Amino acid sequence: MSNHFPTINKIQYEGPKTRNPLAFRHYNPDEVVGEKTMREHLRFGAAYWHVMRNELSDPFGAGTSVTPWDDKSESLKNALNRIPVFFEFLEKCQIDYYCFHDRDISPEGATLQETHDNLACITDELAKYQNQTGKKLLWGTACLFSHPRYAQGAATSPNADVFAYSASMIKHALEATHKLGGEGYTFWGGREGYGSLINTDMKRELDHLAAMLHLAVDHAKKIGFTGQFYIEPKPREPSTHQYDSDAAACLNFLREYKLLDHFKLNLETNHATLAGHTMEHEMEVAINSNALGSIDANRGDELLGWDTDQFPTNIYGCTQVMLRLLKMGGFTTGGLNFDAKRRRESHQPDDLFHAHVGGMDAFARALKISHAIIADGRMDEFVSSRYSSFDQGIGSDIESGKVDLEKLNDYALGIDAPILNSGRQEMLENLLNDYIV
Amino acid sequence: MSNHFPTINKIQYEGPKTRNPLAFRHYNPDEVVGEKTMREHLRFGAAYWHVMRNELSDPFGAGTSVTPWDDKSESLKNALNRIPVFFEFLEKCQIDYYCFHDRDISPEGATLQETHDNLACITDELAKYQNQTGKKLLWGTACLFSHPRYAQGAATSPNADVFAYSASMIKHALEATHKLGGEGYTFWGGREGYGSLINTDMKRELDHLAAMLHLAVDHAKKIGFTGQFYIEPKPREPSTHQYDSDAAACLNFLREYKLLDHFKLNLETNHATLAGHTMEHEMEVAINSNALGSIDANRGDELLGWDTDQFPTNIYGCTQVMLRLLKMGGFTTGGLNFDAKRRRESHQPDDLFHAHVGGMDAFARALKISHAIIADGRMDEFVSSRYSSFDQGIGSDIESGKVDLEKLNDYALGIDAPILNSGRQEMLENLLNDYIV
Amino acid sequence: MSNHFPTINKIQYEGPKTRNPLAFRHYNPDEVVGEKTMREHLRFGAAYWHVMRNELSDPFGAGTSVTPWDDKSESLKNALNRIPVFFEFLEKCQIDYYCFHDRDISPEGATLQETHDNLACITDELAKYQNQTGKKLLWGTACLFSHPRYAQGAATSPNADVFAYSASMIKHALEATHKLGGEGYTFWGGREGYGSLINTDMKRELDHLAAMLHLAVDHAKKIGFTGQFYIEPKPREPSTHQYDSDAAACLNFLREYKLLDHFKLNLETNHATLAGHTMEHEMEVAINSNALGSIDANRGDELLGWDTDQFPTNIYGCTQVMLRLLKMGGFTTGGLNFDAKRRRESHQPDDLFHAHVGGMDAFARALKISHAIIADGRMDEFVSSRYSSFDQGIGSDIESGKVDLEKLNDYALGIDAPILNSGRQEMLENLLNDYIV
Amino acid sequence: MSNHFPTINKIQYEGPKTRNPLAFRHYNPDEVVGEKTMREHLRFGAAYWHVMRNELSDPFGAGTSVTPWDDKSESLKNALNRIPVFFEFLEKCQIDYYCFHDRDISPEGATLQETHDNLACITDELAKYQNQTGKKLLWGTACLFSHPRYAQGAATSPNADVFAYSASMIKHALEATHKLGGEGYTFWGGREGYGSLINTDMKRELDHLAAMLHLAVDHAKKIGFTGQFYIEPKPREPSTHQYDSDAAACLNFLREYKLLDHFKLNLETNHATLAGHTMEHEMEVAINSNALGSIDANRGDELLGWDTDQFPTNIYGCTQVMLRLLKMGGFTTGGLNFDAKRRRESHQPDDLFHAHVGGMDAFARALKISHAIIADGRMDEFVSSRYSSFDQGIGSDIESGKVDLEKLNDYALGIDAPILNSGRQEMLENLLNDYIV
Repeated sequence: MSNHFPTINKIQYEGPKTRNPLAFRHYNPDEVVGEKTMREHLRFGAAYWHVMRNELSDPFGAGTSVTPWDDKSESLKNALNRIPVFFEFLEKCQIDYYCFHDRDISPEGATLQETHDNLACITDELAKYQNQTGKKLLWGTACLFSHPRYAQGAATSPNADVFAYSASMIKHALEATHKLGGEGYTFWGGREGYGSLINTDMKRELDHLAAMLHLAVDHAKKIGFTGQFYIEPKPREPSTHQYDSDAAACLNFLREYKLLDHFKLNLETNHATLAGHTMEHEMEVAINSNALGSIDANRGDELLGWDTDQFPTNIYGCTQVMLRLLKMGGFTTGGLNFDAKRRRESHQPDDLFHAHVGGMDAFARALKISHAIIADGRMDEFVSSRYSSFDQGIGSDIESGKVDLEKLNDYALGIDAPILNSGRQEMLENLLNDYIV
Repeated sequence: MSNHFPTINKIQYEGPKTRNPLAFRHYNPDEVVGEKTMREHLRFGAAYWHVMRNELSDPFGAGTSVTPWDDKSESLKNALNRIPVFFEFLEKCQIDYYCFHDRDISPEGATLQETHDNLACITDELAKYQNQTGKKLLWGTACLFSHPRYAQGAATSPNADVFAYSASMIKHALEATHKLGGEGYTFWGGREGYGSLINTDMKRELDHLAAMLHLAVDHAKKIGFTGQFYIEPKPREPSTHQYDSDAAACLNFLREYKLLDHFKLNLETNHATLAGHTMEHEMEVAINSNALGSIDANRGDELLGWDTDQFPTNIYGCTQVMLRLLKMGGFTTGGLNFDAKRRRESHQPDDLFHAHVGGMDAFARALKISHAIIADGRMDEFVSSRYSSFDQGIGSDIESGKVDLEKLNDYALGIDAPILNSGRQEMLENLLNDYIV
Repeated sequence: MSNHFPTINKIQYEGPKTRNPLAFRHYNPDEVVGEKTMREHLRFGAAYWHVMRNELSDPFGAGTSVTPWDDKSESLKNALNRIPVFFEFLEKCQIDYYCFHDRDISPEGATLQETHDNLACITDELAKYQNQTGKKLLWGTACLFSHPRYAQGAATSPNADVFAYSASMIKHALEATHKLGGEGYTFWGGREGYGSLINTDMKRELDHLAAMLHLAVDHAKKIGFTGQFYIEPKPREPSTHQYDSDAAACLNFLREYKLLDHFKLNLETNHATLAGHTMEHEMEVAINSNALGSIDANRGDELLGWDTDQFPTNIYGCTQVMLRLLKMGGFTTGGLNFDAKRRRESHQPDDLFHAHVGGMDAFARALKISHAIIADGRMDEFVSSRYSSFDQGIGSDIESGKVDLEKLNDYALGIDAPILNSGRQEMLENLLNDYIV
Repeated sequence: MSNHFPTINKIQYEGPKTRNPLAFRHYNPDEVVGEKTMREHLRFGAAYWHVMRNELSDPFGAGTSVTPWDDKSESLKNALNRIPVFFEFLEKCQIDYYCFHDRDISPEGATLQETHDNLACITDELAKYQNQTGKKLLWGTACLFSHPRYAQGAATSPNADVFAYSASMIKHALEATHKLGGEGYTFWGGREGYGSLINTDMKRELDHLAAMLHLAVDHAKKIGFTGQFYIEPKPREPSTHQYDSDAAACLNFLREYKLLDHFKLNLETNHATLAGHTMEHEMEVAINSNALGSIDANRGDELLGWDTDQFPTNIYGCTQVMLRLLKMGGFTTGGLNFDAKRRRESHQPDDLFHAHVGGMDAFARALKISHAIIADGRMDEFVSSRYSSFDQGIGSDIESGKVDLEKLNDYALGIDAPILNSGRQEMLENLLNDYIV
């Protein structure tokens, strides 16, 4: 293995009492929680874009990240040089999966053909490293938002040639994902939306977007890719309004265009809050339609109006995620991909480790807490008993469709005015605190 | 006619130059714009709840509204006394339609039966006044959010008896609407949501909500009500999260539960902005699914986080609404219902007139502006030419489904890198200002 | 003692392992943390308005709270009847302090004189109960926002008679506070702001507001009240914009009108977040000007745009508050007043206990955590070492004013380009989690 | 004159009826409105950073702007080449003033000395162009936010050498401004704040910030610069929290550190709305302290949480600005600087002209509207009569300090309960629409 992080040893589990900042306090990969190991439950992924390509610039300042292994060029050679660094990072952090956009791993060429050739060369190298290390590709995707040609959309560009270019990119990114054994393929439509409706034909753009997704589904079948397609909701930024603004908007679109059988959602915490929802709301919306696929693990700052992509360290937030994952039975193809970046002020290479180790530990702790909550049963019992009037009598008749408005009116005229039980939100919030240890 | 507003004469059109605050500058009901009169285009409605029942309280203060005709009791007699005042208001304001919740017009009785009897008595009186004045009912609805029994939901209450009570209320409100020739019936689910997911079974609640809507649809068929059902999106307030949070969430729900054939959306400007959307966005989402039904005309304050329900006076905002209405061909059953209230500091009866007259004039002006924009054609031409690459060649093949990723890849490899035209948002915004007169 | 909460015994400390929801897990009043008991550190207060007068209504629904001891009248008798209930609550909850507005405890009379007489009668009774129980008044205030006469402001009303009325109320509320040994007197200016600038003379209103505060300061001197005056920032709601929008706006106002010597801030968590700040930001702003007086303990919902006044149960949030309180040396006249209400769905009397017990435990836990963080020292050491370049050399010269731009320019020309250390935010966030137990 | 915009002629006034998009409909520079020409009233400025240096990138995509005159290098030659292009732009757009940051006009050198030398060379060239064209410098500033060395602050950096570097930059930027006859010098503290309080000593940082401002004030005196210093409020972005978050926070800081005599505010519309205020609120706050200096003219998108810096085209918004400017007597050293950028999709050079022409016309129209409102007098009369109870009697006594709480209490006991007049917000909003032509 290379040694680009010479001051960092492989991160080890040392338990909650350790004072070593670069150790796991909670993540003990092969420890069994319930019926699975932590590793199997959590399926952590690292984002190639944040770990290797994020220079930590912002709209008002240049990049600060210190990356001695990177010559800052867009050359193929530089792209190849980054690969061992990334796998060293995965190894030292004990992260089993990764995710990429095509342009994270492989540079745009002078021609479209050269771009595709670059990708083929890079994926050969990635395959080699995957084999050597056992690391796996959680999902791949095409970056259809950064290049100026996508400034007015990719699948939703008013320019048909841009649609064709985007299709070409998706074809190769999908094939690259397939080649590397990727378990999924994600669409994030950062430019699939509008800056202003004043120059936009929304209906025509949505038709084009659906057409593109169908083309990808068809191509997957053709090449034998059986991984899961994901669509990732986000309400705004970089556009004024993206069409995939939240889970419900995505599901509505997928239903309207008959794509729901082929797609699940890749939910991100910060995108949920930007849309005005909690992450747990978005998860329940997705789960209710059997459409929760994978998670971009991060957190936002609710007082800021953009995607801060901070590392998830809030135990409450991580617990809300893990509770719902455990109840749905855990991931199949998906995982917890750290779509999170260090702050611009945390520019040193070891900050990458502090950040990921903290996020992994927060989720491991949340896993144990969530397991305890479910095993204890008091919270679930409260909720099911709250709805118990629908388990028999008139409630059961309502659920089974045995009543009409006439019958319900007759029933209501015959009973005393209903008296509600307390919703006990405060008591349950206190109870939740009992598990936060 | 009664004379409860003795200082107010019937509001007349006096043209833009008048200095009389209680005259129309733009709304000239029988003036033809395009192929219809203003009255036919705009179909203004007044909200019984705001005009007659809104005491102008807020969470930190008691009502301020001066209403000499109202004895402040919840008696049937008081309810009957309000009716002539309301119709005098409609007449003097030249508003053709109105909307109500059952509890706005008719008081809760000591028993459920008495509640229903009250409603029957009141609707007899309303029918009489409708006949005398020619005023019409735009839509009716049941108030399933104010009484404490709905504190945990109506159709989504955990208490089955509350579901039954709600069903009974809907039955009678629907029948009352039918009796009064109402052109629509609206569901606003202010309590159909949750305070916290910690005590909530979201899936079970949504199943119940869909069940209730199906019951209403079935009952309408039974009694011969052929008016339009509406569902009204709103993201939060009073609950932490309502299920009908925005147009896309409503459409997703309606599609999932096979209700889309029976419902259209009643969109409200302030609800759109609370959901993080512009009203024009919500309108296009609804129109694209042929689901725009009616409009609750108001405006919010984007710096405040609740439903301020202010009167619509911003010409830009009204123009965005009218442009889309004209393009979709105008209302069928719907109208522009002023779901708007005076500020708490505007407590005198004549403020009701200032407020409605201003809102009517703003929409009348917006109608003329929108008609001019469409007639002139420059804005629409820009947009259609922007997408013209999809009118032939590869673009046309994409739209007609004649390509797959292979073919698009081949095509892309054979062309020069695409060059985008400017989106010209600034130029179009300047052009829009030319019409604002 | 009365027994209006027959199912509730006095809440006892049972330690973290108890499964009794109505026990303290962390608040052990006489346990010493650092140099003081928990009781001395935390100085918990209950809000008369939330405990006794909040009917749990919201803008869309009537009150739900079950209060068998209250006849719902605005009579003096009813007001007197509430007093033993409240003191029973304080006793059973082990809360040492309380706060009130004049109108919470005492009804408006038919005349102003009667209003004042009512207050005198009620405060006699309160004094008696204080004596019997040892409970103390943290602060009092006048409710200058609920009555319609304050709809356009109290001190900032355009109506001079309203100013005079408000002055009269303040006089008596201040004297009542003095009579009951109150340790402070608070101004919350919910109506001191504007609905719209279109009808407002902001400068004149601010001059009036400052005049009123000076009148109160002068009167306090006259009557010998030496308690602390507080001003409470809040950005909006009920008005569109309050003048006291955040800590900085209050301090700016107090400085401009030469009131800073007489006032400290009463900060509320939910008000901070509504203003776009964290509570810890507001606390530091206040502390930096030696102006942090007291705290209204609650929490908001960052996804909602109004004051939800939820009970504080988030350990992170409470820890941020306690860390700063400990560092400033703790309260003198102030305390942690629960300006928090149960959810509208939590309408039963025992929910009052669940809510307060949870809040008290959250702060007690946060106290222990904060004490541990400070005792351990690693977080403070990181911060002080981060700024160590200002402890000597050029940094020290800068701080002591020994340089000018010329000298700094010369210095800069003579050094290598500065290299920053990492800010280590992620590492510190991980470290913080180590203390959350 | 150079000809880098070959398709653009000098923009001419053609009146409201023209269909030429690149003509002024309202801005007629030498037309007199009231007692000044439009040119004198409006004092338009162009921002060197947006016109010449903004590549139209965003956090998710590369720059799109087409700039054939720019070789994309950071060379001095390229910097010199941009100057004639900029002055051609100013000439063709009829903009009289401009603003710059040091790094917009002049590249960072290999050493600090070279950086300063570059600036000297560039300002020689700018002086030449100013002389030739008569264009003037509204204000200059140093860019202390873009370079990685400022990632943790400039004046508030924890690194004393960074403070010294910043001081050196300010010295030279101030001298450059002086050399070019700049009428002001601006501080925008984009990095003067924090990412998290967890690693921040707020008090020490604020002390350092104040020290730096005092150093600049002293140096100005020394070199004879008598222009106005400005501080520019902005609440967040790029930091999590900037210290200069809004007008009140700036004024509080300036008062605390005895800087208010030396600084005025440079207010920006989008910054106001990000801080949760309207621009008119911020203007009144500044004007009330005689501290409104200059304006960064733009607009934001209230549904987005970052600085969109869009061109101001909303007639209502521009009117609110001009109304207050006219009432305060207009600018002295300040002006309307277009701190606004084209959308990323508007990448062609002529979009620069569409954007600025639209903004200039919007303000020219707003000037005429505002002048008409003031001349007509009805709005001002309403407001002054609303407060007329303070013009005599008890109100006058209150304003002149002739009363105390005792006297006011006596007065209040002797009058009837006060009755409020309506605030008439709706009537005034309607009236405002009469002027929007």
